[in-house]
Amino acid sequence: VTILITGVAGFVGCNLAQAFLKQGETVAGFDNLSRGRLQNLAIVSTAQRFSFVQVDLAEIEDYGRALRHVHDRNPVSEIWHLAANSDIPAGTADPAVDMRDTFLTTFNTLRLMKELKIPTLAFSSSSAVYGDHGDGMLNEVSGPLLPISNYGAMKLASEACISAAVEEFLTHAHIFRFPNVLGVPATHGVILDFVRRLRTTPDCLTVLGNGNQQKSYLHIDDLIEAMLFIRQRASDRRSVFNIAADDAGVTVRFIAEEVLGVVAPGARIVYGKEDRGWVGDVPRFRYSIAKLRALGWQPRMDSVEAVRKAVSEIANQELSK
Amino acid sequence: VTILITGVAGFVGCNLAQAFLKQGETVAGFDNLSRGRLQNLAIVSTAQRFSFVQVDLAEIEDYGRALRHVHDRNPVSEIWHLAANSDIPAGTADPAVDMRDTFLTTFNTLRLMKELKIPTLAFSSSSAVYGDHGDGMLNEVSGPLLPISNYGAMKLASEACISAAVEEFLTHAHIFRFPNVLGVPATHGVILDFVRRLRTTPDCLTVLGNGNQQKSYLHIDDLIEAMLFIRQRASDRRSVFNIAADDAGVTVRFIAEEVLGVVAPGARIVYGKEDRGWVGDVPRFRYSIAKLRALGWQPRMDSVEAVRKAVSEIANQELSK
Repeated sequence: VTILITGVAGFVGCNLAQAFLKQGETVAGFDNLSRGRLQNLAIVSTAQRFSFVQVDLAEIEDYGRALRHVHDRNPVSEIWHLAANSDIPAGTADPAVDMRDTFLTTFNTLRLMKELKIPTLAFSSSSAVYGDHGDGMLNEVSGPLLPISNYGAMKLASEACISAAVEEFLTHAHIFRFPNVLGVPATHGVILDFVRRLRTTPDCLTVLGNGNQQKSYLHIDDLIEAMLFIRQRASDRRSVFNIAADDAGVTVRFIAEEVLGVVAPGARIVYGKEDRGWVGDVPRFRYSIAKLRALGWQPRMDSVEAVRKAVSEIANQELSK
Repeated sequence: VTILITGVAGFVGCNLAQAFLKQGETVAGFDNLSRGRLQNLAIVSTAQRFSFVQVDLAEIEDYGRALRHVHDRNPVSEIWHLAANSDIPAGTADPAVDMRDTFLTTFNTLRLMKELKIPTLAFSSSSAVYGDHGDGMLNEVSGPLLPISNYGAMKLASEACISAAVEEFLTHAHIFRFPNVLGVPATHGVILDFVRRLRTTPDCLTVLGNGNQQKSYLHIDDLIEAMLFIRQRASDRRSVFNIAADDAGVTVRFIAEEVLGVVAPGARIVYGKEDRGWVGDVPRFRYSIAKLRALGWQPRMDSVEAVRKAVSEIANQELSK
C-alpha cells in the first residue's frame, strides 16, 4: 500500500516523508509548490519507494487524476493531509488564501477519499483553532473554539468536515493540533525571519511586538515522532491530539537573543509596543498534552532546547546559501 | 439604516422580517428561492419598509451588486445571515450542498461586510456543531466540537470564519446555536414530514428510527423573541448563545402520536429499528440555556407545548392547500 502525503514539499511534509521511508513504507507526495520547494525533497527523491506529483489540490479534477493514478498502481491506505496555507498574515490580507489552500484542499481530499474508499486520514490542525483563551490551559475538549485568524478558522473548518466524514465513510481520522514547530528545512516562522533580517541589517534586529509574547515550541523531530506514535497507538475513530512541548514556552525576546548570539553577536534589538505581532497572532497560551502523555509519549526537547537546536540548524541552512 | 436578512423566504427568515418590521425597522431580504418560497413573504411584502431581491449569495458578484444597491440607498447596519442548506440528508448525499449554500454564503457575506464596513453580523448556527455528546449537558463552552454531519460541519466552519472576522473588522457577531425549531410556515422537519405522509397514506405512519430519539423543540415565536432579546442585551463582541427549550425534550414517538391525534386519529404507527433516523442525526442531547437565562430570557413554551402548537399550525397549513 501507499501512504500519500499532501504538502510533501513543505517543512513538515518532507520530514514526514523521510520518516515513513525509513520505516519501509511506500510514499507518494503531492504539492503545488506554491510555498513548498522541490529542493526540500532532494533527500527523499532518490528513494525508489517515493514518488512525487506537482498538483494543486484545490483543483479537484487535477487532484483526482493524480490520486487515481497512484491508487490504481498501489492502493492508498492513508492520506496525511498537510497541504495548507502556512502564512497567517497572508490569510488575513486575503481570506481567499486560507479558503482555497487550507479548506478547499481538505474538502476535496474528503470527496476523493469517499469515492476511492481510502479509509484513514491524518490532518495537521493547529492550536489556532482554540482562539485566544488568555492564560487558560487548553486541552482537546476545551471550548469555545473561536479562532482569531482565517488561518485558524479554516483549520477548524477542516476539522469539522473531517469529523462529519468519520460519521459517514472514514474509518479513522487523526487530527493533530500542532504547536509552533521549529527545525529545517525552514520555510517560514520567527527564527527564519530573524536570521534573514540580520543578514540584511547585521547591526540591528527590529521585532514586531514588544517581545513578551510567550509560546511553547516543539522541534520537528519530536513532532514527527509524536504523530507516528499516535498513528500506532490511538484507537478512537476521531483521534484528536494536542502535540506540543510540555512547558509554558519561551518569549520572542528569548528567541531574538538566541538568534543574535549565533548569527550577529553584539547587534541590538528594537522592540515594538504592541502585545501581539499581527492580527490573528495569539499572544500567549498554555497547551495541555496530558492526553498524549497518557497515551505514553513525551517530547525529548523542551521549548528552550527546541529553539536552540533550531536556531543552529536554521542559521546553517541560511549561511550555506 | 437597513437590516438585511439573508434566507428571508425561509421559515425563520420570514418570521424574523415580520418581527423587525413590527419594531419599526427597515428590512431588506435576500433569498435565492431554492428552498425558501416567495409565498412565505406574502405578509411582509406589502410593507413599505420591506424590499426583496432574489439573489444567490454563493455568487459573490451578484451578491455584491445586490448588497451595494441596498447599502447605497440606506446603509446596512446589520446582516442577519440565515441563508443555508436546511436539509441535513441532502448535505450527506452531496457535500457540495452545505459547502456552497451554508459555508460559501457565509464566507461571501464576510467579504462584503469587510468591503462595505457593515459592523454587525447575526448568524443562525446550530446545536449540530457539538456533534454527539451522548447525554452530556451542552453549554456554549463545551468541547470538543466534532460535528457528525456536513450540515453541522459547515455551520461550525461558518462560526470559525465569523470569529476570525470579529478579530479583524466586525464590531459584533451574534452566533445563535439553534435547537430544533417548530412553527409555520413549515418547509421541512419532522412534523411536516409526518403530516404529509399521513395525507398520502392516512391509515399508517412509517417512522424512520425506533421513535425513541429525544430532542428538545423550541417554537419559532420563542426563537425570534430570544434573538431580539440577545441583540438588545448581549455585550460580548463574540456573543455565542444556545437557544432552546429548557427541558429534556420529547421523543419522536410523542410527536408521531400528536400528529396522528390531529390529522389521522386511529391510524397506526410503524417504527424502524435504528436508534437514529439518518446519518448525521444526533439521537439525543441535552442543551443548556443557562447563559441565556442569566441574561434574563426564558422560553414561554416547553417542548411539549411547542410541539402541540406547531402540530396544530402545520396541520392547518397543509389542510388549507
